[in-house]
Amino acid sequence: MHKLMIVSRQQQAYEAMLAEQPLPGITLTQQPDEATILLADPPKVAPQLKQFPALEWIQSTFAGIDALTQPNLRQDYLLTNIRGCFGQLISEYVLGLTIAHQRHFTTYQTQQHTNHWQPHPYHTVAGKTMVILGTGSIGSHLARSAKALGFHTIGVNRSSQAEEQAFDAVFPLAKLHDALTQADVLVSTLPATASTDNLLNVDSLGYCRQALLFNVGRGNAICEQGLLKAIEAGAIGHAFLDVFKQEPLPNNHPFWLHPKITVTPHVAAESFPHQVMAIFRNNAQLWLTQQPLRYTIDFQRGY
Amino acid sequence: MHKLMIVSRQQQAYEAMLAEQPLPGITLTQQPDEATILLADPPKVAPQLKQFPALEWIQSTFAGIDALTQPNLRQDYLLTNIRGCFGQLISEYVLGLTIAHQRHFTTYQTQQHTNHWQPHPYHTVAGKTMVILGTGSIGSHLARSAKALGFHTIGVNRSSQAEEQAFDAVFPLAKLHDALTQADVLVSTLPATASTDNLLNVDSLGYCRQALLFNVGRGNAICEQGLLKAIEAGAIGHAFLDVFKQEPLPNNHPFWLHPKITVTPHVAAESFPHQVMAIFRNNAQLWLTQQPLRYTIDFQRGY
Repeated sequence: MHKLMIVSRQQQAYEAMLAEQPLPGITLTQQPDEATILLADPPKVAPQLKQFPALEWIQSTFAGIDALTQPNLRQDYLLTNIRGCFGQLISEYVLGLTIAHQRHFTTYQTQQHTNHWQPHPYHTVAGKTMVILGTGSIGSHLARSAKALGFHTIGVNRSSQAEEQAFDAVFPLAKLHDALTQADVLVSTLPATASTDNLLNVDSLGYCRQALLFNVGRGNAICEQGLLKAIEAGAIGHAFLDVFKQEPLPNNHPFWLHPKITVTPHVAAESFPHQVMAIFRNNAQLWLTQQPLRYTIDFQRGY
Repeated sequence: MHKLMIVSRQQQAYEAMLAEQPLPGITLTQQPDEATILLADPPKVAPQLKQFPALEWIQSTFAGIDALTQPNLRQDYLLTNIRGCFGQLISEYVLGLTIAHQRHFTTYQTQQHTNHWQPHPYHTVAGKTMVILGTGSIGSHLARSAKALGFHTIGVNRSSQAEEQAFDAVFPLAKLHDALTQADVLVSTLPATASTDNLLNVDSLGYCRQALLFNVGRGNAICEQGLLKAIEAGAIGHAFLDVFKQEPLPNNHPFWLHPKITVTPHVAAESFPHQVMAIFRNNAQLWLTQQPLRYTIDFQRGY
């Protein structure tokens, strides 16, 4: 019999779903030493990893599993994450904030407070170029949504292979600078790995001209000092940041009050418990029948 | 020789474009009594209509021509408007504000001012139903954009015929109430005609439940007192209004400070001079060769 332990902020929601519809062949436990399977939030389980001697498999409740791929942590178990349900939410976040910026919604809101009727000139987003770093399920979904709204889409990844219908062009990472010179909107969907650390720094961002920058991947991809300089130099017109090197963003951080930076508290995409549970149920079924699981992580690559 | 006079806030832009690339067979005039063709903003030309004894054709620079279809005005000339270039801008406005509302962008902006990191629960817009009143070029474009973002789309018009790819269903106006009961987002793109006057009133809006209401058509379609009651009753969750019975919205109007009403100063779509000029050039070519013009208005129908 497999023993499952839940280590999540959403523990009650998951337990309620499992009480209503149990997983055949898997029982819940509260005893770390007998747990063979964990359904877990990576940042929550990472500091306790040594407490699970019988551990065989962790199903992450997050897409981002970098808390578990740090080199000093054990890697003697199978790690799977969740995918496929974030593209829509990321698309809403990026397109919604891009339009809000482009169409002066904040200005009109301010004007409304003083009964002030004053139109401002604007341009459509149609025909603008969105450069998307990362062409996995999130980047591809975003590209399709952006194309439907009239954007020209360029993907950047390691292989320069990607879903053809989503991207008008795909550049290999080695040609990142060529992509950045074309960006009206630049979006990082990159996972946290050694090779994405500070990829967007004062040098690379310097290839942009008044681009809108979004980080909906991981905070490590942006050099924070480099971003401040790139804004000052006019390379970046506005930055919309949902992820940071330290979260919550520290209270004294210069991003909070910067007029050209929008800070959101890691809400661009969210793991809704029913979606996580659907993926977990499917993987559990595969696990019980000894078939390969979906969405496995390669600890070396980090994704 | 045809004589063209320009009556527009954008007069200089149009004159500059015509100076650079003249219309063969048409000369510009500043003399109202010799003008046979007007390129004109309807609200600007309407009060001066009697000053053009030689008038044969007005090319409106706006989509909305209701200032010229009032029953007390002359109708002894051909009137054409512009179409086809507003769908994109209206889509950006409606989708951008819907996402901004759904994803709490204003709340995060307020929180940022006090360095406050606090996520809030939300739902995706995917799977929500958008009911669009009017299925012409604007309504159809909006429906296509909304579908690409995951909305279910319902059109309402007089014939219940519409572009099949844009709408999942089309209701005749006689079944408006059936459509409204399904609306998560309700958008009026209707022109100002006698039959659209106060179409959205306390009775019809009462069929909605916490719907987001957009008016990007004409102000006449909404009964203002009825809307205030529908908000109070919970039928309308928030109203985003770009057009009003009186514009600019009067300074003492209750909409300005209403927490569930967003007022924008008639900016959902704009006639960009180069787009207007492209349509005018095409129509002028047809005019000179005595072919039927595009986008002619039926004074009786009002569109």
